[in-house]
Amino acid sequence: MVKNNDKSVLAVDIGGTKIMTAVFPPGDGMLAGEVYSTLADEGVSAVIERLCRAIDAVLDRYDLKTPQLAGIGIACAGGVDSGRGVVVTPSPNLKDWVDVPLAEIIREKYRVDTFVVNDASAAALGEHRFGAGRGVKDLVLLTLGTGIGGGIIADGRLYLGAAGGAGELGHMTIDAGGPPCGCGNTGCLEMLASGRAVASDAVTRLKKGGKSILLEMVEGEIESITAEQVGAAARDGDPLALDVLARAAYYLGIGMVNVVNIFNPEMIVCGGGMAGLGDILIGPGRRMVNERAFSISSRAVRIVAAQLGNEAGVHGAAVFAREPMVRGVA
Amino acid sequence: MVKNNDKSVLAVDIGGTKIMTAVFPPGDGMLAGEVYSTLADEGVSAVIERLCRAIDAVLDRYDLKTPQLAGIGIACAGGVDSGRGVVVTPSPNLKDWVDVPLAEIIREKYRVDTFVVNDASAAALGEHRFGAGRGVKDLVLLTLGTGIGGGIIADGRLYLGAAGGAGELGHMTIDAGGPPCGCGNTGCLEMLASGRAVASDAVTRLKKGGKSILLEMVEGEIESITAEQVGAAARDGDPLALDVLARAAYYLGIGMVNVVNIFNPEMIVCGGGMAGLGDILIGPGRRMVNERAFSISSRAVRIVAAQLGNEAGVHGAAVFAREPMVRGVA
Repeated sequence: MVKNNDKSVLAVDIGGTKIMTAVFPPGDGMLAGEVYSTLADEGVSAVIERLCRAIDAVLDRYDLKTPQLAGIGIACAGGVDSGRGVVVTPSPNLKDWVDVPLAEIIREKYRVDTFVVNDASAAALGEHRFGAGRGVKDLVLLTLGTGIGGGIIADGRLYLGAAGGAGELGHMTIDAGGPPCGCGNTGCLEMLASGRAVASDAVTRLKKGGKSILLEMVEGEIESITAEQVGAAARDGDPLALDVLARAAYYLGIGMVNVVNIFNPEMIVCGGGMAGLGDILIGPGRRMVNERAFSISSRAVRIVAAQLGNEAGVHGAAVFAREPMVRGVA
Repeated sequence: MVKNNDKSVLAVDIGGTKIMTAVFPPGDGMLAGEVYSTLADEGVSAVIERLCRAIDAVLDRYDLKTPQLAGIGIACAGGVDSGRGVVVTPSPNLKDWVDVPLAEIIREKYRVDTFVVNDASAAALGEHRFGAGRGVKDLVLLTLGTGIGGGIIADGRLYLGAAGGAGELGHMTIDAGGPPCGCGNTGCLEMLASGRAVASDAVTRLKKGGKSILLEMVEGEIESITAEQVGAAARDGDPLALDVLARAAYYLGIGMVNVVNIFNPEMIVCGGGMAGLGDILIGPGRRMVNERAFSISSRAVRIVAAQLGNEAGVHGAAVFAREPMVRGVA
């Protein structure tokens, strides 16, 4: 495997709310850059300008010139055609990113080989190489945040599919008669088990007159309730919050059973902010996998928490930039 | 790739109703053996005895001795741990096949290297090498028969998962509130879109007083209705039969959208008896993929009919026996 291990790699993770940068020097370790706000509402050009400022800043901080870089790896939300380095379809938090030739833009500006990969796929790669999934052959990552993303490691390799779009596990229909999703599909896992779904379910119950400490937490501003607040209320034993999370956990469990029956993975790694809820959210999924999935597959799987937190994306982006094999280049 | 191309491979496909054998000589081509009835109700030992008679017969027919074989490949329904060559969990049509060390039994009897793989995975491999999926990198096969099976080709390689259990696409939940399935899960694709589901839906509608030419076709014996008969009635324009198939096609479409969002495959290959219904069954799925799946992935996929019919399994079993790489042996 050619690793270009004599040069540093610069990695970026463009999320709906934050832009993270990091430098991965030859050998081990990560040098973190500052975190910037994405401010996606300002539009694609503004975000790319901010991205360039973030790149400049991390180069400056570690006294690096671009010729010292083996490559730039960018993890980005949305449908990414990694072969061409284009963000083809937008994500809910980067709404106007349609056919943005991100690799080309950055490559031309910095004169450094640049590679782009979907953020959840990058996180799967990061956890596989440096986090919870080290040494595991078949692994599925679920990012449980505002939305739900997925990344797939199959036979030890990042699986991206024909155009880099694979792993949209949040957008598998698990309830045919369920609510329509912004993606155009119906009854998606994301509509039933994401942070957004949790917040929305809590709001609905409170508007119907449900009692909960959430009402005090948000001083009556019901619409402002977040999944984090529901999680905090649940930890305090609030029955309404516990019910909301039990419902999300049930649907997440259905999604996990599907993942187990489809992939027979050794490991499901749960990342994203919602994964911080731990067994309240993940426990029911473990039980449902044992009860409902094929035993040949349920016996083989461990369902665990991610280890790299919000640094999984930059870790994966760095590997993606450094290793041609990972990008399907022999 | 080591191919042992100087010797023949003997391939077997053990299905719920039939046992097929074939010899694949060095180079190209297939020499078919006779087809035997599985008679699964007689139990594991009886089926294995019949399997051995089938192997003896095809060796005899083509005047082969076992030392002339590079290996024996067996495609078998159920959960197959290919690494150990054991049928771990039964399929609905091979009910008592639990922890059957099939590779070992055949290897000891014939003194030939023997390999076992799940039948739908074998069919995917067969279609990928010799059928509809030649030259395709990422492919998902759906076997639409009495039940629904699946096989996965990822990055040009057969994907089996940690224990050979991957690809149970018929047992992904697509309707969380749907009917319980014999597999232990709920609202499985197979419960809603398989041949069994089609027959059962027709029976239910007729019992409720529905009018259909099916009543004449089965001379009032409603319970005996098969999916084939529903298909024939639909081709004749029978409204009830068309409704039954439209419902199955809708659920199959949901399953296809899931496959497209999860795998971003270049191709979905539809095999099995139900695939013979063509656009009545597959057409709605194509439309739903265009309407509901992520465009990065829906643009990339072709949904096509399998080409090898019921010979896909023996073709795949032969490749599985011949090529160590396919079995994950470097």
